[in-house]
Amino acid sequence: MNILITGGAGFIGSHVADRLLAQGHFVVCADNLSLGKIANIAHHKNNPRFRFIKLDAADLKQLRAVFKRYRFGCVFHLAANSDIQAGAKYLDVDFKNTLLTTFTTLRCMKEFGVKQLVFASSSAVYGELDKPLKEETGPLFPISYYGAAKLASEGFISAFCENCGIKAWIIRFPNVVGERTTHGVILDFINRLKKNPKELLILGDGSQKKPYLYVQDLVEAILFVWKKAQGKVNCLNAGVSSASRVSTIARIVVEEMGLKKVKFKYTGGDRGWVGDVPRFSYSLSKIHSLGWKASRTSDEAVRLAARACIAGGDCSRVGG
Amino acid sequence: MNILITGGAGFIGSHVADRLLAQGHFVVCADNLSLGKIANIAHHKNNPRFRFIKLDAADLKQLRAVFKRYRFGCVFHLAANSDIQAGAKYLDVDFKNTLLTTFTTLRCMKEFGVKQLVFASSSAVYGELDKPLKEETGPLFPISYYGAAKLASEGFISAFCENCGIKAWIIRFPNVVGERTTHGVILDFINRLKKNPKELLILGDGSQKKPYLYVQDLVEAILFVWKKAQGKVNCLNAGVSSASRVSTIARIVVEEMGLKKVKFKYTGGDRGWVGDVPRFSYSLSKIHSLGWKASRTSDEAVRLAARACIAGGDCSRVGG
Repeated sequence: MNILITGGAGFIGSHVADRLLAQGHFVVCADNLSLGKIANIAHHKNNPRFRFIKLDAADLKQLRAVFKRYRFGCVFHLAANSDIQAGAKYLDVDFKNTLLTTFTTLRCMKEFGVKQLVFASSSAVYGELDKPLKEETGPLFPISYYGAAKLASEGFISAFCENCGIKAWIIRFPNVVGERTTHGVILDFINRLKKNPKELLILGDGSQKKPYLYVQDLVEAILFVWKKAQGKVNCLNAGVSSASRVSTIARIVVEEMGLKKVKFKYTGGDRGWVGDVPRFSYSLSKIHSLGWKASRTSDEAVRLAARACIAGGDCSRVGG
Repeated sequence: MNILITGGAGFIGSHVADRLLAQGHFVVCADNLSLGKIANIAHHKNNPRFRFIKLDAADLKQLRAVFKRYRFGCVFHLAANSDIQAGAKYLDVDFKNTLLTTFTTLRCMKEFGVKQLVFASSSAVYGELDKPLKEETGPLFPISYYGAAKLASEGFISAFCENCGIKAWIIRFPNVVGERTTHGVILDFINRLKKNPKELLILGDGSQKKPYLYVQDLVEAILFVWKKAQGKVNCLNAGVSSASRVSTIARIVVEEMGLKKVKFKYTGGDRGWVGDVPRFSYSLSKIHSLGWKASRTSDEAVRLAARACIAGGDCSRVGG
């Protein structure tokens, strides 16, 4: 099948490309390279079933040209601003890079009759709720612009499914870690420790506890759900049952860097930043009963990610 | 208080203006006059506490100028494409007129420190759910682009509330009828009967049953909720407990027009059009326990609306 991956040179998108190519599909990666990197997909350069196109998926004209050229059977829409904190600074980043890219993708799908969409949604759509987060849980009042843009995307996807006969797989991601990550707490810690190996500044009081899913597990979940769930709008939480405390993440990073006697300094408060959700109870019963479970625990995922990032050495360009 | 009403020359917006002016506020109505009409607000022309400004609320530059000029204490954001069927035809109508106007309004509120937002949301955010529609009900998978744009707006409002200290009143409207309405089943029937008083075409099988709220009741609900609910994001369904069958609406319109022996012809099927929700069970327990109830039944609202529209005579420009 011909498949378009928007955000295909990004952290998760490039892993999806790896797996879809391994399955024998023809894969077009579209990416504006704002967070994505050529290095993430460079190993497919000579694969005749692979194309890379630099474009802004929010630009209807550019995207339309790609849809016109290839007859896609499915779109994996992963293009988004994945940096929640950046979105809080520049108001239109999430609107344009996360929501408008979705709308433009849907318009092209309608125009060119593409009937399958796999969408990277997020646990951030739930906002800060004091109950187990099941797929049917409401109300949905996200507290970050990122979460708002993902919720807005879900809404338009649902309407396009109803009106244009599209089938969608909306997968709500938790925090995802692993090779090629571009930001997040693990990278922040590594960068801070590179600057000062004696002391580590930790946002909040260290008690924030979240599930971290290993990127390879996530990609497995995505492809599993795409194959298995056969409704019109299939919405599933993907994640891992365990969770990692921020202070544990700090300890793992210190260990993997081979450092000793690092002093942890906490900024205090129950959250890292405005819009941060300190902890949540993410229900995985739907995806588990469909037959998928993460193979690494959250702490294992953090360790694998820290190790990959330290080995890769490509953590310098992201600030802490 | 200085209050901005976006969509202030529209069906509901102009009624909100009437009431806010009666309460002694200084009211600025902004409207692009695509659905709104000068006639709806002409009676305030000589009121020194009233201003009308023709502008497109999706245009940041235009809207910013209005925020700069007046020190608003509150914004009633009612600008939207209220014509669900038109939205299905022209894909960017709901995105621009309903969602982008919300985002632009929120940006201006942040920039100029306006801390109160009353938002016209819709029962359409619920999509087609087979359970009682409470404010906390999920999942939210709207089936119309209109519902998608309203849900998307809610998401961004919620994020701005968290990040900018804004307080919001999100009121989910059902079908609203009354003086100055621009479209909908009552107008459609009147227009069809004007063309052919012998026969009336009814979309669907006539069994679709929905609650119709009288516009004066809705405006009362909006102002009541704005005053009473004091959370950060206050989300409430507004509506009426009773409902009207499409065939009953047809009968009321025929009666109010003084016609006899009209033959009803049904197109068949359980809904009027793709994206139409044939019936739903809308929970009003939250707004009822806050202390507000509609004073007219759904059938009474339909009759009042039909009468006003027939008397007003301004029903010709909207097709059936």
